[in-house]
Amino acid sequence: MTSLTFRRQLTIEWAHCDPAGIVFNPRFFEFFDTNTWLLFEEALGVKPQELAATYGIWSIPLVDARANFLKPSKFGDVVEVTSRVSEFRRSSFSVEHRILNRGETAVEGEEIRVWAARHKTDPDKIAALTIPPEVIARFDAAAA
Amino acid sequence: MTSLTFRRQLTIEWAHCDPAGIVFNPRFFEFFDTNTWLLFEEALGVKPQELAATYGIWSIPLVDARANFLKPSKFGDVVEVTSRVSEFRRSSFSVEHRILNRGETAVEGEEIRVWAARHKTDPDKIAALTIPPEVIARFDAAAA
Amino acid sequence: MTSLTFRRQLTIEWAHCDPAGIVFNPRFFEFFDTNTWLLFEEALGVKPQELAATYGIWSIPLVDARANFLKPSKFGDVVEVTSRVSEFRRSSFSVEHRILNRGETAVEGEEIRVWAARHKTDPDKIAALTIPPEVIARFDAAAA
Amino acid sequence: MTSLTFRRQLTIEWAHCDPAGIVFNPRFFEFFDTNTWLLFEEALGVKPQELAATYGIWSIPLVDARANFLKPSKFGDVVEVTSRVSEFRRSSFSVEHRILNRGETAVEGEEIRVWAARHKTDPDKIAALTIPPEVIARFDAAAA
Repeated sequence: MTSLTFRRQLTIEWAHCDPAGIVFNPRFFEFFDTNTWLLFEEALGVKPQELAATYGIWSIPLVDARANFLKPSKFGDVVEVTSRVSEFRRSSFSVEHRILNRGETAVEGEEIRVWAARHKTDPDKIAALTIPPEVIARFDAAAA
Repeated sequence: MTSLTFRRQLTIEWAHCDPAGIVFNPRFFEFFDTNTWLLFEEALGVKPQELAATYGIWSIPLVDARANFLKPSKFGDVVEVTSRVSEFRRSSFSVEHRILNRGETAVEGEEIRVWAARHKTDPDKIAALTIPPEVIARFDAAAA
Repeated sequence: MTSLTFRRQLTIEWAHCDPAGIVFNPRFFEFFDTNTWLLFEEALGVKPQELAATYGIWSIPLVDARANFLKPSKFGDVVEVTSRVSEFRRSSFSVEHRILNRGETAVEGEEIRVWAARHKTDPDKIAALTIPPEVIARFDAAAA
Repeated sequence: MTSLTFRRQLTIEWAHCDPAGIVFNPRFFEFFDTNTWLLFEEALGVKPQELAATYGIWSIPLVDARANFLKPSKFGDVVEVTSRVSEFRRSSFSVEHRILNRGETAVEGEEIRVWAARHKTDPDKIAALTIPPEVIARFDAAAA
């Protein structure tokens, strides 16, 4: 079963680039983060700032992130950031990101996030919760 | 054979943190980037801004980055960012990063970088060069 | 005579916000920077990455920036960043920025930039050049 | 009466620089922000993350920021960021920042901040509080 793909067009800004004239790598992880919030908004119809309250969670914290940088992106390049949940597990999920620049894959990345509440007794810890089946169903329905 | 480990103490700033009150993940990739430059400075005795000219390369661009976020770091936390080259290959190398917070590993990460020149005919491309044996020898000597 | 006003709609991202849950102030200066490039693109019909080559300059470096923060902007807020050149002088110009959030001014800012070449003998210095009359005329024409 | 001056040495990182090879202006506002927190820590002996709870405030939000960029700072430059409260008013205060590079002033800046609580009835607003005389006295004592 396929999952919803969210696509965002983005123009590379002066602000994103480093002395080599190309996007500084941490910016790509920003692009991923923003896309994940927007992907959830598209799938669930819930604004990012209302996601936690809507589902009674603390947040969807990141536990793992990775990226392969295949081609540099430069100031003024128009890129497309596409993102989809590649797998829902019991309480965590993987988001696959791909950045296209002139029709070629410039960056491939993945985030692993947890559907999390605050820990009951230790506010510094998080507790993984079961992802509600209706959340997963919404991603499938939106992709259909 | 072991390789030189570079250690940097860092206090988590307001600027590094997100609305959840913890370090926003792209900042960790910034910390990694800075540590890699400083690790090379310590091993080679060459200032980061002189690395390219000293060795006749363009730069040491990143081709892969990843991180595991094990424990959150918060505003005011004093962390230690430790970095070492875990492997030198012909023209690429892996840098292993570890962020310690209160004696526990908070983040584990890895960068893969290339020892690179500009491509001769296409300025948008890079050409991987053989890492000079004396560069590798310096890392080993510094660790001894 | 009025000058062209460039308007950009922007949704406040998780990435822009600090532990107080509001946009961290340096991000507003990023928004200003990006808007100045886009304002010049709209007025001159020249892509930002081609501005320097098109006019034979080095860049339009910032010499002064300021902002008043009147109302906080939060994750998910949809704001409008409006920018216009408020004054062209011989070799410098002022860009006035205004960020609107729910119809109210949230931030007022100003940048002063220089139309600059590299200094002929000292590459670390810049030399202010006379802004070409045709550049100024384009802003007026675009506003008409 | 003079006020305490806080000094922090900082090496300009690759992460701070833009395609022109110099510090991207929003980073200077980050440097200012961090220095203000550290200045308060030095004056009051209170860790930044404990400032709000210690004094029963919400935070010290920024209402105005400005900077003059006199000389560029580049990757690898070692700069000194010096900061002092130039004026305490009833419920607001000004922090003067100066960045020195090779003995010359590279950036001059100022922040205006408010000693603030959350508004009693509207959580989106802040209420300015009178700065406690003992806070001001600590800055004077620390400078003596």
